[in-house]
Amino acid sequence: MNLTGHSLIAGRTVDGEGKTTFGLNPATNRPLEPAYTLLTEEQLTTATRAAAEAFASFSTLDPETHAAFLEAVADNIEAIGDELITRAGQETGLPAGRLTGERARTTGQLRLFAAVVRQGDFRGVRIDPALPDRAPLPRADIRQRQIPLGPVAVFGASNFPLAFSTAGGDTASALAAGCPVVFKAHNAHPGTSELVGQAITKAVRDHGLHPGVFSLIYGPGSSIGQALVADPAIKAVGFTGSQSAGIALMRTAAARPEPIPVYAEMSSLNPVFVFEGALKGDIDALAQQYVTAVTGSSGQLCTSPGLLFAPTGEAGDKLAAAVGRAIAACPGQTMLTEGIVNSWKAGTKALSTAAGVELIGQGTPGPTENAPAPAIFGTEVEQFTANHVLHEEIFGAASLVIRYTSTGDLLQAAAGIEGQLTASLHLAEEDYPTAAPLIPVLEQKVGRIIVNGWPTGVEVGHAMVHGGPFPATSDSRTTSVGTLAINRFLRPVAYQNLPQELLPAPLQDDNPWHLNRHINGDVVPAAEKAEVSA
Amino acid sequence: MNLTGHSLIAGRTVDGEGKTTFGLNPATNRPLEPAYTLLTEEQLTTATRAAAEAFASFSTLDPETHAAFLEAVADNIEAIGDELITRAGQETGLPAGRLTGERARTTGQLRLFAAVVRQGDFRGVRIDPALPDRAPLPRADIRQRQIPLGPVAVFGASNFPLAFSTAGGDTASALAAGCPVVFKAHNAHPGTSELVGQAITKAVRDHGLHPGVFSLIYGPGSSIGQALVADPAIKAVGFTGSQSAGIALMRTAAARPEPIPVYAEMSSLNPVFVFEGALKGDIDALAQQYVTAVTGSSGQLCTSPGLLFAPTGEAGDKLAAAVGRAIAACPGQTMLTEGIVNSWKAGTKALSTAAGVELIGQGTPGPTENAPAPAIFGTEVEQFTANHVLHEEIFGAASLVIRYTSTGDLLQAAAGIEGQLTASLHLAEEDYPTAAPLIPVLEQKVGRIIVNGWPTGVEVGHAMVHGGPFPATSDSRTTSVGTLAINRFLRPVAYQNLPQELLPAPLQDDNPWHLNRHINGDVVPAAEKAEVSA
Repeated sequence: MNLTGHSLIAGRTVDGEGKTTFGLNPATNRPLEPAYTLLTEEQLTTATRAAAEAFASFSTLDPETHAAFLEAVADNIEAIGDELITRAGQETGLPAGRLTGERARTTGQLRLFAAVVRQGDFRGVRIDPALPDRAPLPRADIRQRQIPLGPVAVFGASNFPLAFSTAGGDTASALAAGCPVVFKAHNAHPGTSELVGQAITKAVRDHGLHPGVFSLIYGPGSSIGQALVADPAIKAVGFTGSQSAGIALMRTAAARPEPIPVYAEMSSLNPVFVFEGALKGDIDALAQQYVTAVTGSSGQLCTSPGLLFAPTGEAGDKLAAAVGRAIAACPGQTMLTEGIVNSWKAGTKALSTAAGVELIGQGTPGPTENAPAPAIFGTEVEQFTANHVLHEEIFGAASLVIRYTSTGDLLQAAAGIEGQLTASLHLAEEDYPTAAPLIPVLEQKVGRIIVNGWPTGVEVGHAMVHGGPFPATSDSRTTSVGTLAINRFLRPVAYQNLPQELLPAPLQDDNPWHLNRHINGDVVPAAEKAEVSA
Repeated sequence: MNLTGHSLIAGRTVDGEGKTTFGLNPATNRPLEPAYTLLTEEQLTTATRAAAEAFASFSTLDPETHAAFLEAVADNIEAIGDELITRAGQETGLPAGRLTGERARTTGQLRLFAAVVRQGDFRGVRIDPALPDRAPLPRADIRQRQIPLGPVAVFGASNFPLAFSTAGGDTASALAAGCPVVFKAHNAHPGTSELVGQAITKAVRDHGLHPGVFSLIYGPGSSIGQALVADPAIKAVGFTGSQSAGIALMRTAAARPEPIPVYAEMSSLNPVFVFEGALKGDIDALAQQYVTAVTGSSGQLCTSPGLLFAPTGEAGDKLAAAVGRAIAACPGQTMLTEGIVNSWKAGTKALSTAAGVELIGQGTPGPTENAPAPAIFGTEVEQFTANHVLHEEIFGAASLVIRYTSTGDLLQAAAGIEGQLTASLHLAEEDYPTAAPLIPVLEQKVGRIIVNGWPTGVEVGHAMVHGGPFPATSDSRTTSVGTLAINRFLRPVAYQNLPQELLPAPLQDDNPWHLNRHINGDVVPAAEKAEVSA
């Protein structure tokens, strides 16, 4: 495909009237052609206005057209072929194997949401049939469904140029909900964004949808982002990135004349708790798994484990030593941007110079300028509890092993951490009584609890929660991965006493969309006939 | 029961160290004994700390104990007997018949939530069983459920001293979710609040629950409210009241180190659209229904219709004349407070002096100082579109009839209104084609659409939405009435690869709580056996 270097607004290439920028190859710090023109705030409204115009038709699509559109986006992304993997590799430094897997996740996610659209439970149909003879007052026929919120602004993440970017989870779930999307490309991978944006635009056109269903915009970092969130046409925001940027968007959204929800996935330490029983198994294997989780994708994962609690004593010493050996064998991998490398260096320096913190082991620098040597540090639980520096996320391949003596230590440390995406427990059956009291504490802190596994590798399914209390995310009531993510872009509307002719299809008596329905508060599967009119 | 005049914190009577206040009888503007002592901000933390301590046990109650507790609250409220109706009448000026109905609604709502707790769909169980043989990677066992957010602050409304107050919808849905409640009494009905607070406290004690499950606090208006919302132990807020107070709470919650959701139900004009066909029926009856909806409870309902769009021409003239006759026959009723009367007077004055607005008819003043004569005004759609004063809610018995010429007028007027709780359409079968394009416009503006009925009389059921876009509420994704209200106080947590012994009951294979479950994305009713472990 041809990279134009311009925004793609409602199906048309739009030459930005602001400055220009280039993607940079982090392996060389050299610019990648073409230059990308940046939109001005005035130009931005072309995209938001088109999204608002597209809403009426897109939000009421029949499920089959809607699902087929999402599947076409997936097909079109696959049809780009190797060019997508090559360009994404140049822009991010991520290896082709990782990017190929990420592409499969991205297209699988779109197809999963197509299935969600066909299945339809997200429409939340509830019917309370009329009770004309009820005393003292009759009950009217009342029906409820979930409708899409309106146009959604999505911000791409640097670390997943496909799965959390142009056609990533936020875009897929917003489009599945029936919301047009205005996507702000991450400036670290403009070409990858354009390739995927073209794939979405083609699917919009091929399915005869209003072109405003999707726009891809390039603009100067934070200013165009703030303008997008402040735009009255935008009704919700999806974001994955840093805490400071996420909080800035939250503040802007809350200060609007009409406040809107912001779904920001921001930061996480993903603590791992190792119990005594887990150390009676293969300690070297456990250490290797931990190091793999810390260093995979150069540690640039939201779910990379930044903390590991291990018991004091001989077995714990063995684990620490094995971790030191395993990390020493790890070469650095090119990180996403020079800025991220600098933040990683500042973070590891702050950690390494904190009181009571020592280096457990460190790998070797990688072959490029932006591939620092991964490092794992060690400390005692008392230091961790006392020093907030040890609670700061370091984005990249670094982690901290914290030695604890009693379960009381663990409970106290868990109670003292901020909101996280995940917590993991490594344990044997003998540890169940010790671990049980930790579960309710962790439920208050995280979105996902894992036993004898690692938090990386987030399954895209129906039961996944990729979310958690602030500051892991802006809204603990939601997930940005998995089918529940669609709920972020919906709101309920009730219809009282509407004639069949005026009721939307999902609520009509004869159930033309074959939906499971809650009738009088209990679920009636689509296959069952139900009396819903008095 | 004995009114103590004090806050009731975690089962104990606490003498406020601040000033004191009295309930006022709005029929006489005279104080009602006893004096109520107001808490200081320091004293407030006793309640929030107790709520936080109660969370662990209350949030994990078995459904039967949990439901029985809610039913006991309902029983205890009924057991207060006539004293509750008498005191509420003295404090609000509302007639006994209305209050008796409101009490039934309050206890019915508690019992409905008890049924919701037993039924359990709100727990949102999703199970994606392990796929150990999946290629290229196996899938872990992942399970999801909704857990309560934590302690909730609830603010009582002035206009429903029972159903939107101490044990009203916010309290009932928060308690049903498993969240302890700190309730800030409305200073206009302190005695009613205390009677109901005692009923809740007794149910907490009788069921052996942690006393921090419920506290009732009296404090100086906005300052203690702001302190309550800012308290780190509080994880969500329920509020019904004015737009200015609601927005102030939203700002405080968004500015916290850990922002929390605020569910504020604030204001609504509840427009009514009358189509030509509806005027071929009994015009006098339609006019009388409208006037009844405007004047019921002295117009002090969130859903009172503040706008009625009627066609120009002869039939519309007849409707306006009939409205004028019907309202002229209405005596004023005592309003809730002198302050509300003053706001009503200011609002009706602003409306009556606006360009192009005339009085259609007015009733007579009621027998007390605070019972102004209800009034209905008239104008043209052009005036309405042009002048924002005509879009301001007037809390109390006043409404505005707007004459329109074309369906285009109606669509434009509907597109120009702010978010509302409801919109109502009066029409005949011949109007369906004309009315159909209005429905999607209204969906973007309101939480409930009603045909050939009036928005007052909000049914407490499974399909009800008492919500809508800002500024009707702070969060269009929610309802404050009906069983969906429980969702406001929940968040999802995923459990990956947990052994049965560590899984919470709702997620265990053998389904001990008999829940409907989504397995691999499709609903499996509780009655069906399902293979969920690999």
